[in-house]
This record gives sequence, structure tokens and C-alpha cells, in this order.
Amino acid sequence: MHKLTSAELPAALAQVPHWRYQDERGGLIARQFVFHDFVQAMGFMTQVALVAERSNHHPEWFNVYNRVEVVLTTHDVQGLSQRDIDLAQAMERIAAAWPPQEPA
Amino acid sequence: MHKLTSAELPAALAQVPHWRYQDERGGLIARQFVFHDFVQAMGFMTQVALVAERSNHHPEWFNVYNRVEVVLTTHDVQGLSQRDIDLAQAMERIAAAWPPQEPA
Repeated sequence: MHKLTSAELPAALAQVPHWRYQDERGGLIARQFVFHDFVQAMGFMTQVALVAERSNHHPEWFNVYNRVEVVLTTHDVQGLSQRDIDLAQAMERIAAAWPPQEPA
Repeated sequence: MHKLTSAELPAALAQVPHWRYQDERGGLIARQFVFHDFVQAMGFMTQVALVAERSNHHPEWFNVYNRVEVVLTTHDVQGLSQRDIDLAQAMERIAAAWPPQEPA
């Protein structure tokens, strides 16, 4: 596992089109998920938590009611790694179980 | 349910000594919980989520690995209400199930 190079970054980010890349802390990706209510938001977080723990790669996230704001980065490489891309894709698969909501 | 008045505030805050009051957004209380690991942090959040949903009063919270930062306020009254004090106390009872950790 290594920090994605500037040569690798475009292809990696193309795999997670709903995420925005930010050049902070060596590189991170961020995304807001909006659900119907708190029950759905916590359902999402609980499912993601199990995947995160299994892969030993954890998100930074903020929740208020139906909204979940996520930041993914890899402390060990001080930037973005394939593990962030993998977790982002897992989140997309989990969130897809619920109908999309209008942004808050 | 009403916004706690300045006369009521001291007695209310005395019930949640680990929480710090901030005079923002009409009044809020905040606290950081530090657990052993992500499993404990998510266990805490999951238990709190059930209590929050039952009482229809939800936290604003941020989690990264073993750390959970919580803000409680009551949008409906644009400030602090007894419901925030009640939820803070419920969080203390839930967190007490785990041995305290040194602050991160």
C-alpha cells in the first residue's frame, strides 16, 4: 500500500466520481451522503463500519440527522491510497440500497 | 419543551459536568469521548442512536477511529433544552460501560 502518485491519481479518482479530491493533508477525498432520515443514515454508517473494521481502514465522518459527511485519507502514507478508493466504492454500494435524496 | 433560560442554565449544566457550554447557535453543549478503538466507538454510537431515535432528539457528532465529538442543541428552540441535558446524561451512562481512555 502506497500513496497514490500524481500519475495514478486520475484513474483512481475516476473510479469514485461522486467524491471530490482535496489537496489537504497530503490528499483526501470527501463526499456528503443525504438520506431520508436518521434511521437510514445510521443504517448506512453501521454497514460501513463493519466493512471499515474488516479492512482495518476507517473513515472520518460527521453525522447530523439524515446527513453524513465523509472524509477518506490514509494516515500511514500521509495521503490518498487505494484503500480510500476501495472504501469509497464500498460506501457507494451500501448507499445505493436507499433511494437518493435531494441535497440538504 | 423550551429553551433553558439563563436562570435555569446553571442547574441544568451542573447535571452534565463533563460537557462544556458554548454560547453559539443560541447555546449548545459539547463533549469528546475517547474509546479504546473503533469497535468501542461505534458500539457507543449505535447505542446512543437507538436512544436518540426513541426520543426523537439527535446528536451532531464526528467520529474518527476511537474518538467521538458530540454537539447537542435543540433546533426547535434555537438553543439548549432539557432534551439536550437528558441525551447528554444518557450518553454518559452508555459510555460508562467502557473503561475511560486518556484523551487523544
